[in-house]
Amino acid sequence: MMNLNQQMRLDLMKMKRNNPLIHVQPCHRVALLTHMHPDGDAYGSLLGMKHLLSQRAYQVDAYAEADPASKFAFLPGFAELKTTVNAAEIIYDICIVLDCGNAERTGDFQLLLKRAHRIINIDHHISNTFFGHVQYIIPAASSTSEMITQLAQDFNILLQPEEATCLLTGIVMDTGSFLYENTSAATHQAAAHLLDAGANHDLIRFHLFQNRPLQNVRFLGYLIEHMELLMDKQAVLLTVSDALLAQYEVAYEDLDEFISYVRDISGIELAVILKEINGDEVKISFRSKSWLDVNKLAAGLNGGGHERAAGAVFNGSLAHARRQLLPLIEACFTGGSCV
Amino acid sequence: MMNLNQQMRLDLMKMKRNNPLIHVQPCHRVALLTHMHPDGDAYGSLLGMKHLLSQRAYQVDAYAEADPASKFAFLPGFAELKTTVNAAEIIYDICIVLDCGNAERTGDFQLLLKRAHRIINIDHHISNTFFGHVQYIIPAASSTSEMITQLAQDFNILLQPEEATCLLTGIVMDTGSFLYENTSAATHQAAAHLLDAGANHDLIRFHLFQNRPLQNVRFLGYLIEHMELLMDKQAVLLTVSDALLAQYEVAYEDLDEFISYVRDISGIELAVILKEINGDEVKISFRSKSWLDVNKLAAGLNGGGHERAAGAVFNGSLAHARRQLLPLIEACFTGGSCV
Repeated sequence: MMNLNQQMRLDLMKMKRNNPLIHVQPCHRVALLTHMHPDGDAYGSLLGMKHLLSQRAYQVDAYAEADPASKFAFLPGFAELKTTVNAAEIIYDICIVLDCGNAERTGDFQLLLKRAHRIINIDHHISNTFFGHVQYIIPAASSTSEMITQLAQDFNILLQPEEATCLLTGIVMDTGSFLYENTSAATHQAAAHLLDAGANHDLIRFHLFQNRPLQNVRFLGYLIEHMELLMDKQAVLLTVSDALLAQYEVAYEDLDEFISYVRDISGIELAVILKEINGDEVKISFRSKSWLDVNKLAAGLNGGGHERAAGAVFNGSLAHARRQLLPLIEACFTGGSCV
Repeated sequence: MMNLNQQMRLDLMKMKRNNPLIHVQPCHRVALLTHMHPDGDAYGSLLGMKHLLSQRAYQVDAYAEADPASKFAFLPGFAELKTTVNAAEIIYDICIVLDCGNAERTGDFQLLLKRAHRIINIDHHISNTFFGHVQYIIPAASSTSEMITQLAQDFNILLQPEEATCLLTGIVMDTGSFLYENTSAATHQAAAHLLDAGANHDLIRFHLFQNRPLQNVRFLGYLIEHMELLMDKQAVLLTVSDALLAQYEVAYEDLDEFISYVRDISGIELAVILKEINGDEVKISFRSKSWLDVNKLAAGLNGGGHERAAGAVFNGSLAHARRQLLPLIEACFTGGSCV
């Protein structure tokens, strides 16, 4: 067991070596940015950091797309997000970019980056391009929100309930509520810390897990009725036309939850969804469960991604994409190779 | 910060006051029991405790129903569970009963309890009857598996991967993967400890979350197609006949997952499922989301349960049960009272 002095020295060493917050001073004007089409971890880490700094009298503005109808609109501070930028007016001392693999993915807010004196890049994506002046990238972290939680702990910052709720949301969404393989002991420790700080888990559960749009449920019913089981029930194919999405009033972004649902059927190794875009393009998403490298499968269609989740884009009709795809799927299961 | 001596004194006090394992000695013959129709926490705490004691040279037998086709059959030690009892042959010094609210719920294994010298009752159900000679009941714990994890930590027992996998399974299943409101900071701390000890989370995810029987998925498709939305889409009613279950080959025990699925639709407060049993009885299950006290609703039908989950049994046909039920549901939403 370490004594207090040893512990303090260790903490200080950690900070000096790692903690990017050491570059942020109360006199600085700070802008916080994240990626386009923000997900739970983007909003969670952005708003968590906003609370964390602004409650300590820092001058902070947080920028992000923020549709009031978003399922994340319940997050404390969501309504105060700045959605447009007038870079001529404001020059920030520091831009902190959260959960964002490259500078381009900040979209319209990239203007701010170009004019900032210093850019701090905090992210957990292994594909991060290490842009900016300070990089703090931990691919082993489940989420950027987990990283922010640990940064706050390193600095002995006592978290408030609002920021804890935001950060817990980010962790919960990026881990599928502690189910995905990115969940580590450190992830659970961060969650324990956030609950102790007063994170409102009931609010998160209600808005993100007990608030399934009725039309999405009906659409799942349709997909189950019409899914194609291939390769002796080891693969499942969903085909979604523009007209079908419009009929069920399902958002294009929501399609990912359905592919995960059918991937998790017993015996299924590969799930594929073909999504028509504007009639002349097809986006293909792949998910696998245990052994099939869908990154390779997608590469055969000039796409890419990870071993268990990848995608590609096709020019042409749904029927055309389906014809091209079927032999590739068959090769995965018969030849044992996906290329 | 406490010094080492203070910490040790506190640990010792905790043990003396609470830890029921202090009653178990290596010379004892120990039987472990749990409740009938075991769920994830029953198997998890039972097998976790079995490993924990037997790897330390205690003489331990674990008893439980154990269908080789169970989705929990992957748990280390599952195949060695004793499924029958010959109480005339063996008298145990100690019976430890895990996750079991009353002695009767041990079913056929109750014979062992009657002949044991000492009964230790370890459980997290608030309804526990405090049977046995030693009671260790913590209703604030998410699961009995969480309690066992903490007991092992109190004793500074280094957990092995097998027991950690069993205990993590129990926690994950009783909390819906850290989603239900019984999840606390202590639950996450226990999970972090178990992952550090080598719990195989991939195995748990694969068997319990990515292994959905195809017939259950098809049955969900049917239920979505046929669910009745009532009270301006605030309530949803599912009706399941014997014939329907047989047609889809869905297990009666699996019906609970479907009621939770439809309860979690946006705007729904109450979900009800009517399940025909042998043609002349109907089991009714209720789930609510935020404010409706289904315990009261069930009480109006001579049933009971908790505020958010309750049930009742009806003599008669499905149609008869439905007719009796509809006015009660209406009263909940119009009168604001469920009785």
